[in-house]
Amino acid sequence: MADPEAVGRAFLDYFYGLFATNRAGLASLYQDSSLLTFEGAKFQGQQNIIQKLSTMPFQKVAVQRDTVDIQPSISGGILIFVTGKLMPEGEVQPLKFSQTFHLMPTPSNSFVVTNDLFRLNYG
Amino acid sequence: MADPEAVGRAFLDYFYGLFATNRAGLASLYQDSSLLTFEGAKFQGQQNIIQKLSTMPFQKVAVQRDTVDIQPSISGGILIFVTGKLMPEGEVQPLKFSQTFHLMPTPSNSFVVTNDLFRLNYG
Repeated sequence: MADPEAVGRAFLDYFYGLFATNRAGLASLYQDSSLLTFEGAKFQGQQNIIQKLSTMPFQKVAVQRDTVDIQPSISGGILIFVTGKLMPEGEVQPLKFSQTFHLMPTPSNSFVVTNDLFRLNYG
Repeated sequence: MADPEAVGRAFLDYFYGLFATNRAGLASLYQDSSLLTFEGAKFQGQQNIIQKLSTMPFQKVAVQRDTVDIQPSISGGILIFVTGKLMPEGEVQPLKFSQTFHLMPTPSNSFVVTNDLFRLNYG
């Protein structure tokens, strides 16, 4: 079985690398049953999720991870819990955020995001 | 199948009610395979988790939930993602926190916490 910690950290490198500059490129990480809750708004399925992620009010954004916690879940799944800061290009004030991912293994030894929950932490 | 949103919110009422005043009473929510990551420190199993929760540096604490996001997970599981504030008795400054729970159904139509990840959000 894959090491959850290693898989989780590799996933985050890949995810936030694309999130920073090319959010449409995240499509392969989601499937039709994937769920995203973004600031309380719910989206299901690769197409809806990528549309949401692609139309955020900034283009380039730097992502700083402050804490990363990873646990194995059932059936080979991996839970990832991140706190950090978004720094959209041209903005002075970083935006604190928390994000939870649930990854599940695929038959082809890859992982998909089954659950994605994102919140900005104001104040 | 149970409504994840209703189950999740009922769970949070129960969990934070006990967390506020009687953390030892949370024992029945965890089992031997349950995982807790608390401020980066890892604990496994009912006994270790309750010992950690029971020896926190405050007795009574008020818990304010600012955001609650709930998604169904695989195999009847439920993911719960909370942001909020802890207000330990006698402290003036609230502590912002984020917490993720993964619940799984039991054969007796109840739920246990398989995964619990907790972080304070400083600054």
